[in-house]
Amino acid sequence: MANPSSAEQPANSFTSDIFDVESLAVPDGTETVLRGGRHLFPLLPRAFAGIRRIGVIGWGSQGRAQACNLRDSLAGTGIEVAVGLRPGSASCADARAHGFRTEDGTSGDWLDVVASSDLVILLIADAALAAHHQEVFAALRPGATIGLSHGFLLGHLDANGGSFPAGHPVIAVCPKGMGDSVRRLYVQGAEVNGAGINSSFAVHADPDGHAVDRALAWSVALGSPYTFRTTLRSEYLSDIVGERAVLLGAVHGMVESLHRRFLLEGDDAVTAYRRSCETVTGPIARTISREGLLAVRENLDTAGRDTFDRAYSATYGPARDLIAEIYDEVADGTELRSVILAEQRLATRDMTPIGGSGMWRAGEQVRAERASYAQAADPFTAGVFVATMTAQTDEFATRGHPWSEIVNESVIEAVDSLLPYMHARDVAYMVDNCSRTARLGARRWGPRFQAAYEQICFPAAQAAPDPALVEAFRTHRVHPALASASRLRPTVDISVA
Amino acid sequence: MANPSSAEQPANSFTSDIFDVESLAVPDGTETVLRGGRHLFPLLPRAFAGIRRIGVIGWGSQGRAQACNLRDSLAGTGIEVAVGLRPGSASCADARAHGFRTEDGTSGDWLDVVASSDLVILLIADAALAAHHQEVFAALRPGATIGLSHGFLLGHLDANGGSFPAGHPVIAVCPKGMGDSVRRLYVQGAEVNGAGINSSFAVHADPDGHAVDRALAWSVALGSPYTFRTTLRSEYLSDIVGERAVLLGAVHGMVESLHRRFLLEGDDAVTAYRRSCETVTGPIARTISREGLLAVRENLDTAGRDTFDRAYSATYGPARDLIAEIYDEVADGTELRSVILAEQRLATRDMTPIGGSGMWRAGEQVRAERASYAQAADPFTAGVFVATMTAQTDEFATRGHPWSEIVNESVIEAVDSLLPYMHARDVAYMVDNCSRTARLGARRWGPRFQAAYEQICFPAAQAAPDPALVEAFRTHRVHPALASASRLRPTVDISVA
Repeated sequence: MANPSSAEQPANSFTSDIFDVESLAVPDGTETVLRGGRHLFPLLPRAFAGIRRIGVIGWGSQGRAQACNLRDSLAGTGIEVAVGLRPGSASCADARAHGFRTEDGTSGDWLDVVASSDLVILLIADAALAAHHQEVFAALRPGATIGLSHGFLLGHLDANGGSFPAGHPVIAVCPKGMGDSVRRLYVQGAEVNGAGINSSFAVHADPDGHAVDRALAWSVALGSPYTFRTTLRSEYLSDIVGERAVLLGAVHGMVESLHRRFLLEGDDAVTAYRRSCETVTGPIARTISREGLLAVRENLDTAGRDTFDRAYSATYGPARDLIAEIYDEVADGTELRSVILAEQRLATRDMTPIGGSGMWRAGEQVRAERASYAQAADPFTAGVFVATMTAQTDEFATRGHPWSEIVNESVIEAVDSLLPYMHARDVAYMVDNCSRTARLGARRWGPRFQAAYEQICFPAAQAAPDPALVEAFRTHRVHPALASASRLRPTVDISVA
Repeated sequence: MANPSSAEQPANSFTSDIFDVESLAVPDGTETVLRGGRHLFPLLPRAFAGIRRIGVIGWGSQGRAQACNLRDSLAGTGIEVAVGLRPGSASCADARAHGFRTEDGTSGDWLDVVASSDLVILLIADAALAAHHQEVFAALRPGATIGLSHGFLLGHLDANGGSFPAGHPVIAVCPKGMGDSVRRLYVQGAEVNGAGINSSFAVHADPDGHAVDRALAWSVALGSPYTFRTTLRSEYLSDIVGERAVLLGAVHGMVESLHRRFLLEGDDAVTAYRRSCETVTGPIARTISREGLLAVRENLDTAGRDTFDRAYSATYGPARDLIAEIYDEVADGTELRSVILAEQRLATRDMTPIGGSGMWRAGEQVRAERASYAQAADPFTAGVFVATMTAQTDEFATRGHPWSEIVNESVIEAVDSLLPYMHARDVAYMVDNCSRTARLGARRWGPRFQAAYEQICFPAAQAAPDPALVEAFRTHRVHPALASASRLRPTVDISVA
């Protein structure tokens, strides 16, 4: 179970009767992918054959984004998109403001929408899904397709000896970015065709033989620049591990530890913020997005490269150890247990926010003064960040994930979805505006990264770089894999409101 | 299982045919206890009736201390104490240096010693016990007593559907302090009768009806000032949670966060060390040991009390939340899973030490200069520490632990066993010289405490104190409970070499 390649080899190749797929070169061979774009929208009705109504259940950021994108992409096709909300949901007003109304049947009670839809996309919170999936299953039309956007429910069913109901197709389309960016880039896609968030898809049950095309249609309608295949298990593992590591948890622990390091070296709060948080969310994210991981190092001068190499050498091992630990606990189910236990404790009170630490007070000034100085990457911060990102790609490769999943979950989702939002707000704010499962995971593991950086990596960074580690990074197979994936999508910077 | 009182009410009362027990007043009524001392050693042969040979399996700090104390207490009685080691064990030489030799049969192969002993005390590492307990069970003499010093093996058997072999008494005697202090205070007990580390005992199986007296004899022979009754389950929960919280994990996270706080306020490294680590391991530990928890606050001046109250008010809630989280995960078995997973990952390499952070460099100078300045408790540090300790006592009380277990596992073990050793070395050093289960737990939870202090408590401590929380502390039922327990043992400061 720890290694998806041993238990359930992801079938990375697929064919389609509707869409023209293509082959992507990756380190271990090739993967089949579907390149997206608005020019494919006319194919959606045929790919969605038999689907007259799509029910999106839940109105978190992912529910809102997917409901809006699907509706807009399917406008004029006769396929209706409806939003299902729990009675008395605080989200009714926002759904109405986005055009989903009870009067015309595009908004309604969640179980009514489940019962009236041919494709039911379950986007309620993980804990709610764990508690209420049986009611959903019981309300389904015969043969209705169950749609998921990540593998949490499979993990929960496995851990509790449950299963999906027989006779229903079960598919997943999993955007590799948070809901707000799924919507924002889709809107930008009206001007730059193909702008969007890449998605993986998985077919868990295919009783009618149309699951692949239905999943591809869903992904194209969301605006995915390209779509690759995985399994629910592989998606679940990489998704839950990734958000606990380089996507959220590690970034939070990293900027907390780096900010204090720079303060203790004598920087004022604003300079320390620029060298830590601002470096990560600004120049590093932009460089990786446009030029790749290697460019972060290559754009530095000689002294900068030495600092980068020392930080990289000291960070890679401890970061890899922690990511392996996270992976083991997610694969074992202990991480999922911790989420369930936390939700029980938090049933009657809110999670305490984590944005109180002193560093965030400098953020507003730094953001306000951006125009007035040249943003350059601090080389120490760059080494710590790139080592952590590389450690995650290596751990995922060792565990047998498809390369599209590796680069999307470790690199692209970070630099093209999360970090731009963290740049506009701040890291702690963004952590506390993700899913509850992600928030709980970041609380659990962010401090572990902080402690490892402070207690193990920073002291070790006083030593000379490890030439073998640096060379392994310079010649790493992630660089061509990332370049291949990047060629499948237009270069577009997300415009964060 | 989360609450020992619901699943398995600890029978805190007991009777003895051999020893005179007494009654201890505690908040919820009374508990039966046995006061120890060397004057009871003549009773040991009768209490150990049927035991001609005691095998101590394992030579960690607990194994060494128990083997030496048992041998010394039983000298001249004809009851032999032997040490069982694995073939090729690196500990053979140390055991020999302490007088356990293969020539006279007091040292031998671990399974041979198991097979030749009437009481088999299992003190090998938790992971080894998890892997090899079946071999031990298979080697036991008919009717031999299984002795444990904490409940880990029960947790492991429960999690894996196993059980202890039928027909064997199963007892536990659990010193509430690390092995080095069990030995050190026992030696000091030659001059101050009754000096030692308190122990709990539990009877898990009693087929011959002599289990209680056998456990009491074991505890008296270890030098326990007083012995109280618990269950293996209750002991396991409080032991594993306590070391992850105020005994090790919380202390480490606390001094790391406080040291940096004081540095950022402008202190030099030595002053910051004195106000953080030195305050905790020195004046706070001594004051609590001699005068109780309340005295830490009462010994401060008015301004100091206000600082204490602000720190206490800001810390209590987040610390309690974290301890509840730890408790849930230990009770659920996820914490035990994490230990097993970590041991699998660490099979081929060592744990990275945590003593690299900058703060420990100041420790040597601070220790060297102790004679030259008056050690006073920093009031902010005192508030943070006492709030965390009180939060643990409250969480344990809510979960239904006996009060002797609460005060020993939350207060006495800290101030009379661990903190004096941390004062002589440092906190990170001591964490990394505890059991592997404790080291792994401190790594897992120490950073969580650090992050909670930095991100939640310290910012909140700028606000005025919460009068209700301060009053609850001033009138807390832990104070008389701790005073009752303290009257049962002589006032003796452990002398750390």
